[in-house]
Amino acid sequence: MSTPVEIFDTTLRDGLQVEGVTATVEDKLRIAEQLDHLGVHFIEGGWPGANPKDIEFFARAATDLSLTTSTFVAFGSTRRPRGKVDEDQTLQHLLDANTSAVCIVAKSSDDHVTEALKTTLDEGSAMIADSVEFLLAHDRQVLVDMEHFFDGFKANPEFSFRALEAAVVKGASHVVLCDTNGGSLPHEVEDIVRQVHAHVGNDVVIGIHCHDDTGCAVANSMAAVRGGARHVQGTLNGLGERTGNANLTSIIPNLQLKQDYTCLPEGRIERLTVVSHRVAETLNRAVDPQAPYVGSSAFAHKAGLHVSAIARAKDAYEHVDPAAVGNGTRFVVSEMAGRATIQMKADDLGIELDGPAINGVIDDLKRLEHEGYHFEAADASLELLMRRAAGWQHDFFEVESMRLITDELGDVFNTEATVKVRVGDERHVFTAEGNGPVNAIDTALRRAVGRAYPALADIHLTDYKVRILDGGEATGAVTRVLLTATNGERDWTTIGVSANIIEASWRALEDSVVYGLLHAPS
Amino acid sequence: MSTPVEIFDTTLRDGLQVEGVTATVEDKLRIAEQLDHLGVHFIEGGWPGANPKDIEFFARAATDLSLTTSTFVAFGSTRRPRGKVDEDQTLQHLLDANTSAVCIVAKSSDDHVTEALKTTLDEGSAMIADSVEFLLAHDRQVLVDMEHFFDGFKANPEFSFRALEAAVVKGASHVVLCDTNGGSLPHEVEDIVRQVHAHVGNDVVIGIHCHDDTGCAVANSMAAVRGGARHVQGTLNGLGERTGNANLTSIIPNLQLKQDYTCLPEGRIERLTVVSHRVAETLNRAVDPQAPYVGSSAFAHKAGLHVSAIARAKDAYEHVDPAAVGNGTRFVVSEMAGRATIQMKADDLGIELDGPAINGVIDDLKRLEHEGYHFEAADASLELLMRRAAGWQHDFFEVESMRLITDELGDVFNTEATVKVRVGDERHVFTAEGNGPVNAIDTALRRAVGRAYPALADIHLTDYKVRILDGGEATGAVTRVLLTATNGERDWTTIGVSANIIEASWRALEDSVVYGLLHAPS
Repeated sequence: MSTPVEIFDTTLRDGLQVEGVTATVEDKLRIAEQLDHLGVHFIEGGWPGANPKDIEFFARAATDLSLTTSTFVAFGSTRRPRGKVDEDQTLQHLLDANTSAVCIVAKSSDDHVTEALKTTLDEGSAMIADSVEFLLAHDRQVLVDMEHFFDGFKANPEFSFRALEAAVVKGASHVVLCDTNGGSLPHEVEDIVRQVHAHVGNDVVIGIHCHDDTGCAVANSMAAVRGGARHVQGTLNGLGERTGNANLTSIIPNLQLKQDYTCLPEGRIERLTVVSHRVAETLNRAVDPQAPYVGSSAFAHKAGLHVSAIARAKDAYEHVDPAAVGNGTRFVVSEMAGRATIQMKADDLGIELDGPAINGVIDDLKRLEHEGYHFEAADASLELLMRRAAGWQHDFFEVESMRLITDELGDVFNTEATVKVRVGDERHVFTAEGNGPVNAIDTALRRAVGRAYPALADIHLTDYKVRILDGGEATGAVTRVLLTATNGERDWTTIGVSANIIEASWRALEDSVVYGLLHAPS
Repeated sequence: MSTPVEIFDTTLRDGLQVEGVTATVEDKLRIAEQLDHLGVHFIEGGWPGANPKDIEFFARAATDLSLTTSTFVAFGSTRRPRGKVDEDQTLQHLLDANTSAVCIVAKSSDDHVTEALKTTLDEGSAMIADSVEFLLAHDRQVLVDMEHFFDGFKANPEFSFRALEAAVVKGASHVVLCDTNGGSLPHEVEDIVRQVHAHVGNDVVIGIHCHDDTGCAVANSMAAVRGGARHVQGTLNGLGERTGNANLTSIIPNLQLKQDYTCLPEGRIERLTVVSHRVAETLNRAVDPQAPYVGSSAFAHKAGLHVSAIARAKDAYEHVDPAAVGNGTRFVVSEMAGRATIQMKADDLGIELDGPAINGVIDDLKRLEHEGYHFEAADASLELLMRRAAGWQHDFFEVESMRLITDELGDVFNTEATVKVRVGDERHVFTAEGNGPVNAIDTALRRAVGRAYPALADIHLTDYKVRILDGGEATGAVTRVLLTATNGERDWTTIGVSANIIEASWRALEDSVVYGLLHAPS
């Protein structure tokens, strides 16, 4: 019998504290849907009433969000020191949010009660008891986040136990032990959670809430489960302030695939990779390629030694089946690639390459990667390169010239591109304005070529990335452009490299259009 | 008495397996110098003889690298199955590298011996014994990396113990237990290392080598130390294949600042942040802002609640003193910033802001961050914004117009920029070619303004970053440009945002020049 461990997601509150991230109300709704699709037990929505955006979010959530698996939770805090529960604005906002469950943060470290709140330990304990009692009287399930629990416990376990008891006695369903400044190590967490479990028994679910300041938030959360916790709080992709919150995307498979715990309903863990990427996209923040389980490099194999070993024994370098989390094995082709890797890739793509052609591909890769190309990230350009090595050449169009003019006069910027191409016997000349240079050349090229190829109308660019290589030379450095396009059925990425960002973009754009026409649905 | 734990850095071998990273021989020499500056015990240089680049690196290291603290290590493997040590090419390369210490990888998992090497367990054990004996006879210190140790031990501990004994009996100084596919969890690692320690005693140093496939490489390394390991292998910034190697940048302070171990010589751990960033720069790969201890966000405080709490009690949200690792507290100014944060920042910069001016700054931040500006990353632009709010305006120069033309004709790209400015009563018109648009406008602006301000000659751009916001709109999306410049004494970063990448670059460039002139050394 596998032991259930609840997953409590705080991406919509703690996660959004990460530097550089902001989310609209629409974004938050989309993320909540994804979390429900994944099947976490609780979705924390934020502080109702904290600001206009959160007020609108809770209003929209009440009407627009229909969750099938998860419980939606409003977050708040205990009543103020020396205040009354029925006059407390935060508690009132919590009730107004009209969620079946609420999570409140409570001070559980004695010096935070006496120093930060400037009140007595008796009052600190009463704030918790009163607030739990009040919310329970209004039929809410009450979870209590015990702030600074581990530091407080190390300094004065007696008060930390009192804080826990105040919540438990009044009927909180969960006490969640928080390592608020993220400084605890796994052996400390396991030991303290074990003591808490011995103290409170099974009257209440013990939860854990970690931050990654020592790089141990994942291990700390698992150590807590070993100590008796059955509820884990964290965020998707480890989003969060400073070094981030405990990364649920790692914790869930560690508990469920490698140990005897169940975190998600049957058939949901396979959605982990796609949900992780969708949430990242919504926040316009790519998933770290090196992220365990869900990163694009998590099951990528590059060194010659390993690629040949993988073909022999996948488990030698894959600790779990990537499909179990919805990810896949990826053989990385780079200048270090050997003949076997290129052959494997060609077979994958259905391209027939003989010996000299394979050598040609290897030579091209070495030369181009030396210039700054990076085909690991641009499968479509790699495919075109391999097709060319096999003797193929596209005849969709031929570019005669391109010209781009940008000027500023009195703070107004204008950009226009002129593209001249030949398609078969016809010559097309088009000029297009754009809100930027790439937009202008994209529009001009598509107009010039699109008349002959209606399939182009279904293709559009979805992502444009620019990386400056060798930042040491600043604006004189080489620029690498990655363009991703879609035709609604498949996505592809092409690459262009040049000291001139316009030229790099233009190369990637040409490849992108050629690949799209080559694979146009018939 | 603090217990010593040796640090063995494999950034130059395992670290360079990370996708997207390549290093020149110069880069590798610079990284080795930085590792020595930090004071790690061992620096592993790679496989001598593996390829021309590594051959050159070991030759250059022998002549150009003078290490004051670290021991330089060549990496290789045991002899081939059924081969002889004195005819083995890899062992010969190891000797040719002429390092005092060598590290060899050995199969310590029974099925890798029988399945991958296709030989007997007796031969597997003999390969280890013979190789250690041979290298020792040539006066080398020998460390043995036990590949797939944990998986092998779980399946057949008997052979794993035999493999260890073969190395120990012949005089290896270290046996390093490797979690090669990265799938082990901390409690397993601690348990197995404890068993190994009980078995081999203190005749040999036990090492640990982890990968981050479960997000636990840091915790696994520490668990091994709890089990008796006294040697930790890893990479700076957790660089490495797939999800990366164990991150020494987290492990070192976790062991040395939070537990009773010593990893680096006296006075060196303070260099951790700068060395981490220099190595990242050398590999043209930024340090993750969220990296524990050394990331730019590791001690950054953003949420209103926290910034006021920090002022009260720094340790509430800082688990160690950031100065202990050479990092610092950072108060993040963003649209969420309150009056107190702005006031603190203004005081920092010596700008006098009254109440209405502070409100003006907050309004400007909200509006500009909504447009896509992001002042957290652009301190210089933030300072200019705050100075403007205090009534300041620069009179260094006034731009009349800018024009940029890029064209392609027969595969040749040309770019030129024309800038017209007024400096005082004089009007300057300059045209410059560039290898890209930003280079051209930078050169033209500097020529036009530089005649009046000789200080400009000492200022140059060191970094140029482009981020496409809201990738969903692809080339029609908003572009954020960050430019970093230096005058040799200080560095500063400015920002520009626009749908037009040229306009964004131009805005950042103007701010950069203005800031440089404002702070020119007198």
